[in-house]
Amino acid sequence: MSFSPRKTALTPGSGAPKPRSKGTPDNPLAAELTRSLGPRKVLSNPSERRNYRYDAIQFGATPLAVVLPENTADVVTAVRAARAAGVPVVGRGAASGLSGGAAPALPGLVLSFTRMTRLEVFPQRREARAQAGVVTLSVTEAARPHGLIYPPDPASFRTSTIGGNLGENAGGPLCFKYGVTGDYVKGLQFVDADGDVYELTRDAYDLAGLLIGSEGTLGLITEATLRLTPPPKYTRTLLASFAEVGECAEAVSRAIATGAVPAKLEFMDAACTNAVEDYLALGLPRDAGAVLLVDTDGDDLETVEEERALVEAACREAGGTVRRAATDAEAAALWQARRSVSPALGRIRPQRMNEDIVVPRSALPEVVREIRALGDASGLPVVQFGHIGDGNLHPNILFDPRRESSEAVHDLAHRIALVAIRHGGVLSGEHGIGTMKRPFMREAVDPVTLAALWDVKRALDPAGRLNPGKILPDEDVEAHAHP
Amino acid sequence: MSFSPRKTALTPGSGAPKPRSKGTPDNPLAAELTRSLGPRKVLSNPSERRNYRYDAIQFGATPLAVVLPENTADVVTAVRAARAAGVPVVGRGAASGLSGGAAPALPGLVLSFTRMTRLEVFPQRREARAQAGVVTLSVTEAARPHGLIYPPDPASFRTSTIGGNLGENAGGPLCFKYGVTGDYVKGLQFVDADGDVYELTRDAYDLAGLLIGSEGTLGLITEATLRLTPPPKYTRTLLASFAEVGECAEAVSRAIATGAVPAKLEFMDAACTNAVEDYLALGLPRDAGAVLLVDTDGDDLETVEEERALVEAACREAGGTVRRAATDAEAAALWQARRSVSPALGRIRPQRMNEDIVVPRSALPEVVREIRALGDASGLPVVQFGHIGDGNLHPNILFDPRRESSEAVHDLAHRIALVAIRHGGVLSGEHGIGTMKRPFMREAVDPVTLAALWDVKRALDPAGRLNPGKILPDEDVEAHAHP
Repeated sequence: MSFSPRKTALTPGSGAPKPRSKGTPDNPLAAELTRSLGPRKVLSNPSERRNYRYDAIQFGATPLAVVLPENTADVVTAVRAARAAGVPVVGRGAASGLSGGAAPALPGLVLSFTRMTRLEVFPQRREARAQAGVVTLSVTEAARPHGLIYPPDPASFRTSTIGGNLGENAGGPLCFKYGVTGDYVKGLQFVDADGDVYELTRDAYDLAGLLIGSEGTLGLITEATLRLTPPPKYTRTLLASFAEVGECAEAVSRAIATGAVPAKLEFMDAACTNAVEDYLALGLPRDAGAVLLVDTDGDDLETVEEERALVEAACREAGGTVRRAATDAEAAALWQARRSVSPALGRIRPQRMNEDIVVPRSALPEVVREIRALGDASGLPVVQFGHIGDGNLHPNILFDPRRESSEAVHDLAHRIALVAIRHGGVLSGEHGIGTMKRPFMREAVDPVTLAALWDVKRALDPAGRLNPGKILPDEDVEAHAHP
Repeated sequence: MSFSPRKTALTPGSGAPKPRSKGTPDNPLAAELTRSLGPRKVLSNPSERRNYRYDAIQFGATPLAVVLPENTADVVTAVRAARAAGVPVVGRGAASGLSGGAAPALPGLVLSFTRMTRLEVFPQRREARAQAGVVTLSVTEAARPHGLIYPPDPASFRTSTIGGNLGENAGGPLCFKYGVTGDYVKGLQFVDADGDVYELTRDAYDLAGLLIGSEGTLGLITEATLRLTPPPKYTRTLLASFAEVGECAEAVSRAIATGAVPAKLEFMDAACTNAVEDYLALGLPRDAGAVLLVDTDGDDLETVEEERALVEAACREAGGTVRRAATDAEAAALWQARRSVSPALGRIRPQRMNEDIVVPRSALPEVVREIRALGDASGLPVVQFGHIGDGNLHPNILFDPRRESSEAVHDLAHRIALVAIRHGGVLSGEHGIGTMKRPFMREAVDPVTLAALWDVKRALDPAGRLNPGKILPDEDVEAHAHP
């Protein structure tokens, strides 16, 4: 065992490369990695490396070298080379994340797990073992012939990877009924900052649970054992539209109070609905203040239809208009609307700041109205959508960096975060904290707890080499800047 | 924030009280606590204190003082007094635990949470907020009028407390389908070794998850927010008997392969069945090598009965004889048999060593046979039962300390643990590690992971004051004793 608090820690933020060693004039880290792993697994060309500095939302520092590991041994080799060079290590999968978690805060080594795609299904145990680079949807595709699925369904599940999903503890529409990524992890393998390899199950001192959602700041997850479940036999879909969001939230509360447990409960505000309609022309209700999309599912058709009827009645009682999907094709079209929110918003402004707040469901109408008012006052386009069953809302600020100042965007994002906190909410439901929401952590987490999180970080990564600059705000520097 | 690796750590095991201060000749800690909390909340009389040295399976050291806190502020006061006195702190609920987790390894302060019984149900949010001393069953009793239940059902749920259940991450028969205690915890409050109070939800850096199952070694859980669910509308029960355990395990595997997800799958060997039959005379099949008890449940009666039929067919195909519970009363009687295993065993020998291994289900027949053979060779009575759906087996060694040597019992327990490890299993499914299985941790967890667990322990409890001597084997001393 080599990481321990006794080791000398690097000064936080001192992740710059050491002076170049002789004989490797350009990029000693890349040269060393190429020597030990072979050229096929290392990207050292600047134009290649620049592709690994961003995720789906944020730009970061261009890495000094990128390794495409094919197995855990490659990860160990690369991590040890980074340690020897004194540079930080950042892991990434498909980089479809929405919090900047995979965008390096400092130049260093990036490990891109996209070649680690080994996937085995064990139907008798209802488990799959997946390397970090396995695409999320592939797990269900491999399990389905055995009558099983892997439920977590982040919107990006056709491209995102299991490693990234675990790193961010990703959610998705199904998580209202079926739980988030971490609920489906039975064990995992990870590599620490020194290149030591750990194989964990979910036992006493749940280190695996600690790694899940830690965005690569405590270790690099290389493989995971995932729990599979039989899919529901039947699914029924409806769309309800409301004059305003308060009615929509009221409908959801009434529906849940009847005992119905819909599989999905998705909300879009008028700005979001219109953006999708401009993009796809699906016939969505453009003048509705709020649109609600609902799936009920289960193994008994009568119960599934009864649950849909309960939701439908709750929507009408709250003042909504309901449209049932009569066919699977119609249901698929309605869900395509929800899945197309991201590309639809990209047509309005080239960039967006995507928040991921979770508030008590009872506070939702007020929170949505306050955020709407903040957006209107700022002059920036703001759209809102999310998993309303959990109170998980995604206010998106759309902007063009050539037209709008990043200070104005950041200021508005901060005000939105404060609305969530004031209503008893938290900053991240499913996207992670990353760099995006890191500055708001001081307002979201009390100083005692924050210090405990730092203690845990130091226990597992004493030199601060793993994905520095994510989740936890710096201890000393910012403590004075934000008294 | 006051705990940090920079603090001076006590030498492990140095938990003896400081020299007596003047004016409190007998017991300075008890005197100080009585002064600060009032006499009603402190037990200092030796005969009272002796009642707090054991749990349901293990004797420990008599505490120097026992505090019965009524709220979190009392816990803070007591923990700070223990810190000032330089003695360890051990929390306990109903002390129905089966691993020695609540039995103090050293004399110190015991906090008995039985007076912290505040319980609130929030039906709209499907949540309950419970203080640590709330009895597990009370949560469901309070939630049921709102159409909700709290699923985790350890056998002791009529007496065990929420704090104890969280500390040990307790399971129960329902956990095959519904998950363990930790799966129902949305947040918790805990007090650390310095008396600082933390309020956690299940966010990035899942400290709450780390506390769950840590047996009070990282912090004292004072309150928790629990997730409630609607109960299934229908339940159906069957009992199957088999000539030997291999057939029983085969039946379970076949049943699961059909896609059936029984709510409970409980196994008892012949020795266990006969012990219960001697005790209750319920008409259980005394000559069966293995008995299987199964519940199927759900909201659709047809599906529930179809699942029972699938399990029944699987049992018959594997060579079993099946008896359906025709009425709720008959089902209740069958489950009473399972719940009465503990008192039934107490009639055979006054004490028992209860293991809690989990092995791959495919290995169960071989594991049960090897343990049977070890028991027969030892001459000690050994019975086996458990949650066969998860491969969670409870081999129990029954003994009378006046007749049987504790070395022989411990040696047999160790051999049984090694059988589990050799077949790819783990030492604890739901009872925790405690002191009971602590000596086997070196064989169950690799040194790299064990060192990481110690790093986490030191990060959260640098002075080693919280429930010392539990879960983690000592680092240096035993490293040499067991090379």
